[in-house]
Amino acid sequence: MTGIEQLPIRDELRGKTPYGAPQLDVPVRLNTNENPYPLPEELVRRIAERVTEAARTLNRYPDRDAVELRTALASYLTRTTGFEVSGNQIWAANGSNEVIQQLLQTFGGPGRTAIGFEPSYSMHGLISRGTGTGWLSGPRREDFTVDTDAAVRAIAEQRPSVVFVCSPNNPTGTAVERETVVALYEAAQAAGPSMVIVDEAYGEFSHRPSLLPLIEGRPNLVVSRTMSKAFGAAGLRLGYLAADPAVVDAVQLVRLPYHLSAVTQATALAALEHTDTLLGYVERLKEERDRLVRELRALGLEVTESDANFVQFGRFDDAHLTWQALLEQGVLVRDNGVPGRLRVTAGTPEENDAFLDAVRAVTKETPR
Amino acid sequence: MTGIEQLPIRDELRGKTPYGAPQLDVPVRLNTNENPYPLPEELVRRIAERVTEAARTLNRYPDRDAVELRTALASYLTRTTGFEVSGNQIWAANGSNEVIQQLLQTFGGPGRTAIGFEPSYSMHGLISRGTGTGWLSGPRREDFTVDTDAAVRAIAEQRPSVVFVCSPNNPTGTAVERETVVALYEAAQAAGPSMVIVDEAYGEFSHRPSLLPLIEGRPNLVVSRTMSKAFGAAGLRLGYLAADPAVVDAVQLVRLPYHLSAVTQATALAALEHTDTLLGYVERLKEERDRLVRELRALGLEVTESDANFVQFGRFDDAHLTWQALLEQGVLVRDNGVPGRLRVTAGTPEENDAFLDAVRAVTKETPR
Repeated sequence: MTGIEQLPIRDELRGKTPYGAPQLDVPVRLNTNENPYPLPEELVRRIAERVTEAARTLNRYPDRDAVELRTALASYLTRTTGFEVSGNQIWAANGSNEVIQQLLQTFGGPGRTAIGFEPSYSMHGLISRGTGTGWLSGPRREDFTVDTDAAVRAIAEQRPSVVFVCSPNNPTGTAVERETVVALYEAAQAAGPSMVIVDEAYGEFSHRPSLLPLIEGRPNLVVSRTMSKAFGAAGLRLGYLAADPAVVDAVQLVRLPYHLSAVTQATALAALEHTDTLLGYVERLKEERDRLVRELRALGLEVTESDANFVQFGRFDDAHLTWQALLEQGVLVRDNGVPGRLRVTAGTPEENDAFLDAVRAVTKETPR
Repeated sequence: MTGIEQLPIRDELRGKTPYGAPQLDVPVRLNTNENPYPLPEELVRRIAERVTEAARTLNRYPDRDAVELRTALASYLTRTTGFEVSGNQIWAANGSNEVIQQLLQTFGGPGRTAIGFEPSYSMHGLISRGTGTGWLSGPRREDFTVDTDAAVRAIAEQRPSVVFVCSPNNPTGTAVERETVVALYEAAQAAGPSMVIVDEAYGEFSHRPSLLPLIEGRPNLVVSRTMSKAFGAAGLRLGYLAADPAVVDAVQLVRLPYHLSAVTQATALAALEHTDTLLGYVERLKEERDRLVRELRALGLEVTESDANFVQFGRFDDAHLTWQALLEQGVLVRDNGVPGRLRVTAGTPEENDAFLDAVRAVTKETPR
C-alpha cells in the first residue's frame, strides 16, 4: 500500500494532517459554530422550487458572474447595515474560505506574506500556506483584544501583503474597534500598499455595527461574510465579500470559471428571500450567547467577552482533558488549542442547558 | 474610480483578463461543450426530493468527506469501465477545475512546473499559473496527436512535477493511446518521480475504453472526470478523480474544509441514480458527433478525428472571421485560438443541422 509520504507531494505538506474538527455523533454538538435552528419548512419548500427551476437547465453552465445573487447580497447588506453597496461591489464563492483563497491568490502568493493576530481563525494561515503565501503570526493582548500599537508596529516592520482582521474574532469572540481597523489600514498602506481583509463571518451576532462602511474610500479594504452562520446555511457553502469594484474585477483573474453552481446560486437566492425569519433566529442566539457568558461566569469561570455566536471559556489546567470530560457527558465543544480555553457554540436553550449541566458536573471533578 | 492596476495584485496577473467564453444569447449555442439535452423531468423531481432532504439540515456543515457521493461515483466507474474502484480511490470537488487546482496545490506549486501537450485544455495552464506552478508547453504533431518520443524527451529534459494528458483532448477531440500514457508515466517516474494527470472530462464520448485501469500499480497516476458533460450537468459543478487512496489522502491536505456543499452532494447523488437515461443521451451525441465529422468533411473541410462531444474543423485563413460569420448566422461556436480552426459542440440534431446550414452559407462567402 502506498502512503502519502511516498508520493511526490510538496515538502511543506509532509507530516501535516487535514484541517477539520472531529465529526462525532453525540447528542449535543456545539463545536463548529453552526446555527442550531434548521431552516423553516417554508424556506425548505422555496429552495426546492428554486432548485427545480435551476435543475431544468442544469445541462448549461451557471451564470459565471452570479449577477442575480450578488445583487441580492448587496441588497441584504444595504438593508441590514444602512450602508449602500451594489452588486458590482460583491463577489461570492463556495464559502468564505474560497473567497479568502481567491484573495490570497490575487494579492498574496509566492514571495509575499500575510499576517493575522493570533489566536484567530486558523484557516487564514492554512489558506495562506495552500496558496504559497508566507504566514506571519501577529500579537494579541492577554485579554485577546488587538493591541493597535503592537499591530501597527508588526505591519510596519514585516510589510505583509495581506492583513487579516477577524471581527468578531474566532475563536475568542472578540470584536475589533473601528479605530483599530483604520489604524491597521493606514499602516498597511504605508508599508505596502497592502490589502486588509476584515473577516466578518460572525458579523450579524455582534453588539456593534458592521465594519462594512470602512470600504468607502479604501480600495484596499475587503469585508468578507458568510451565509453559514447567520443564515443557518453551513451546508450551503456560500461566502461573499464587499469591496471596491476593482477588487471584484481582480479576483476574477484567479477564480475558477463557473465556480459557483446553479444549485448553490438558487439555494442562496431562496434563503435571501427569508432574511427576516433567519435574522429572528440570530436575535435568539445573541440572547443565548449572553446567557452563556453570564452563567459560565456565575460558575466562576473566566469568560472572554463575545460578539459572536460562541463563547470562549476557561481557564483549565488541561483544556483538552476538560474537552474530553464534556464529551463523555454527551456535549461536544471545541478545543482550538488556545491554552487553558475551550470554545462553545451558542445552541438552542435546551442544548445550552445541557452544556451548562455538563460544565457543572465536570468542573466539580476536574482540577482547575 | 479605482482600476485593477492600482491595486497591489501579483505582477503576473497584471494586464490579464478573466478566462471564459463569451456568454452570448444566440439561438444555437455550440461553444462550451455543454450537453444539449436537459435533464429528464423525472430526474429533476428526484433532485428536488434529495435537495429538500438536504435543506432540512442545511444549518449543519455537509459531510466533509462526501463519503456517500464518492461511493456512488466509484460504483458508476466500476459499472461503466469494468475496472473496479472503491470510494477511497475517489475524490470529488466543485468541477474538475477544482480537482486539478487541488492536485496542483499538492504536487505542483512554487518552484515546480507542469507540462501539457498543446493545444489542449487551456485551464491546465491557467490553474498552474493560479497555483504558482510554472507552465511548460509540450509538443503535439501536426495532426494533433501526441508524439510519444517527443513528449518523453520533453519530460526527461524539463523534469516537470506534473504531466497533463487530456484524452479525449480539448479542443482537438484527439484520444491519446494507452501505450503513450504508459510511456509518459514511465518517463515521469524516471525524471521525477512526478504525477501524471489524465484528464478524461470527455471520456464517456470516446470510441475507446477509459484509461482508468492504468491507475492499477501506478500510484502517481490520476484520472480526472466530470459530471458536466456526460451527465448533462454543467450547472452542477461536480468533478472527481480516481487514483491510489494515498492521492485522495494527499489532496485532503490542501482542500478547503467542507468544500462540497450539501446541495451539490444531494444533486449529484440524484443524477447518479439516473445514469442509464443520461448515458442514452451520450449515445445520441456520439452519433451526432460522427455525423458532424462526416458532413463537415463532405463540405470539403479538414476535420480532426474526434472522441469527444465536439469537433474541430477548418482550415480557415482567418478562423476568427469565420467564427464571426457563423455568429451572424445565429450559431455560436468556439475559437480556441488554434490557427485556422474552430470547435463546434455536438448539439441536438436540429442544432447541428442549423450549424451545418450556417457553415454552408458562410464557406460559400468566406475565402478559404
